[in-house]
Amino acid sequence: MDDILMLGIDIGGTYTKVGLVNREGELLGFRTFPSHAQGEFTEFLRTFRKNFLQLMDEVPEGMRVVAAGIGAPNANPYRGTMEYPVNFTWGDRVPLLEQIQPIVGMPVFLTNDANASALGEWRFGLAKGLEHFIVVTLGTGLGSGIVSHGRLIEGTSGLAGEMGHVEVRPDGRQCICGKRGCLETYASASGLKRTAFKLMADEPIPSVLRSYAFEQLDGKIITEAALEGDPLAQRAFAYTGYVLGSKLADAVAYFHPQVIILSGGLAKAGNLLLKPTLDSMEHHLKPGFRKSVRLLISEMHGANAAVLGAAALAWERAEIPVAES
Amino acid sequence: MDDILMLGIDIGGTYTKVGLVNREGELLGFRTFPSHAQGEFTEFLRTFRKNFLQLMDEVPEGMRVVAAGIGAPNANPYRGTMEYPVNFTWGDRVPLLEQIQPIVGMPVFLTNDANASALGEWRFGLAKGLEHFIVVTLGTGLGSGIVSHGRLIEGTSGLAGEMGHVEVRPDGRQCICGKRGCLETYASASGLKRTAFKLMADEPIPSVLRSYAFEQLDGKIITEAALEGDPLAQRAFAYTGYVLGSKLADAVAYFHPQVIILSGGLAKAGNLLLKPTLDSMEHHLKPGFRKSVRLLISEMHGANAAVLGAAALAWERAEIPVAES
Repeated sequence: MDDILMLGIDIGGTYTKVGLVNREGELLGFRTFPSHAQGEFTEFLRTFRKNFLQLMDEVPEGMRVVAAGIGAPNANPYRGTMEYPVNFTWGDRVPLLEQIQPIVGMPVFLTNDANASALGEWRFGLAKGLEHFIVVTLGTGLGSGIVSHGRLIEGTSGLAGEMGHVEVRPDGRQCICGKRGCLETYASASGLKRTAFKLMADEPIPSVLRSYAFEQLDGKIITEAALEGDPLAQRAFAYTGYVLGSKLADAVAYFHPQVIILSGGLAKAGNLLLKPTLDSMEHHLKPGFRKSVRLLISEMHGANAAVLGAAALAWERAEIPVAES
Repeated sequence: MDDILMLGIDIGGTYTKVGLVNREGELLGFRTFPSHAQGEFTEFLRTFRKNFLQLMDEVPEGMRVVAAGIGAPNANPYRGTMEYPVNFTWGDRVPLLEQIQPIVGMPVFLTNDANASALGEWRFGLAKGLEHFIVVTLGTGLGSGIVSHGRLIEGTSGLAGEMGHVEVRPDGRQCICGKRGCLETYASASGLKRTAFKLMADEPIPSVLRSYAFEQLDGKIITEAALEGDPLAQRAFAYTGYVLGSKLADAVAYFHPQVIILSGGLAKAGNLLLKPTLDSMEHHLKPGFRKSVRLLISEMHGANAAVLGAAALAWERAEIPVAES
């Protein structure tokens, strides 16, 4: 019997999730707690330690946790740090590995959150067995994890494989990164909202969205409106998919993957997003690449996906003792 | 003494070049002949055979040619074919490897021309010893060869690593590939000419270029005019570099290479092209990537570079007997 578990740690801007994951990708224990992203890093570490110890008490009889994987925003896997993480006040270079390793007392591996999603899809999800695929996470922002020739693309710094800030158009929307026209200002929950507001400004289309303030509106409200037939909300999805598809076509020219997987909150919109994205991608592909890349919606939903991805990193990198049978 | 040579074969739209290359990247024999791209493939094969046999007569005493590498436009390295090569009337799927192997009677390897340039820079040029770099060839069109984590990026089809057709702007210039707004319609010799004509239309700047018809003007004339201080020609280079730099910034987000090398005819313009390209790349990079990528002009010039690149493919892939010392 296989008695090994990995610890998956997903550090988010609001909550941190930790879980115990077996070889089949089943979650055998799970805890979630506030990240204190706007507080001190030491406060995070204290809360993490408490939850980690409680989780270890839940390890099923006869099983062992042998390594941990962390997925975190702006993580540098080579340095073991979070670097200039937006929305966190833990410092410019947060020594994650150095501080977490002594708490957990086992080998710990770090990658950024989008790369963790890609590793999760690779081991447990729709990318099983593939050599070439891309996972695009559509949350508040846009992240990506790219596997090419069976290798996660991290580049010379560990920070590569990053589609969120490729340029959609010169002098486009202002991005929080300081540049203009970045893909994530169009293709993300916040991009969708910006598109909805632009459409309200430009087009005299009736919409339930007109009763929301900018600060109130979010991706979930727009998705629900679109599903109920709101024409402006549907137009917002169509435009979001159009922009995303055009840049996925660029990514195909770079990597020619077998599959592209959309995940994250916005991907829950399903065909509302998938259809215009696929149409646009095919339209923007060079003829030799058309009809050769499958575009899929992730089947890993909710909070679990990020923890499974972080655990997949540990499953990939750890020296695992041969299972007894 | 090392007695091994590789045969490099560069098939171009006008001329084909073949050469004998030693381990140090020295060219010990060289022939060039018309490709008959607008004729029959069999005509090419006949001319190739004749030149190959003449070249083999020139192999220095005591040396052996053990393998051949081919660089060709639209080459599919996995299938050994040229696929839908623009400017060639040899068919939609030209069985290059299958036909050339019996003529040369040694192992033959195929890659596309831009990937051959990258392999040449890797073995003999500015990319020696690097794990992460990109070579951009700026000729009539724009090609690219990308090495990431020590692996040439070819994707699931062998056709990846292709920057020429990423989208610079929606509804931009019409490209011969059928799409609009492709990078090579801006950043290439033909793109430079299109920019010069647009500037002549838009701006009342005096220029010697105004005495040329569209069919007469080429990259060399524009380069010479710019070097002599022609303000419109200089503006054309500045714009070309601006567009190229913005898309190199995207490529950095994808791959974070250590070095980007510009090669091909247009790269001979040197600082005329390098400076605006570097300024724009830095401007368009996400802050975390700035000042971290060196942009260089290839030091391999002229016809030799392509043959050296093709030979580098053979040096990389062939099983080479251990050299006697």
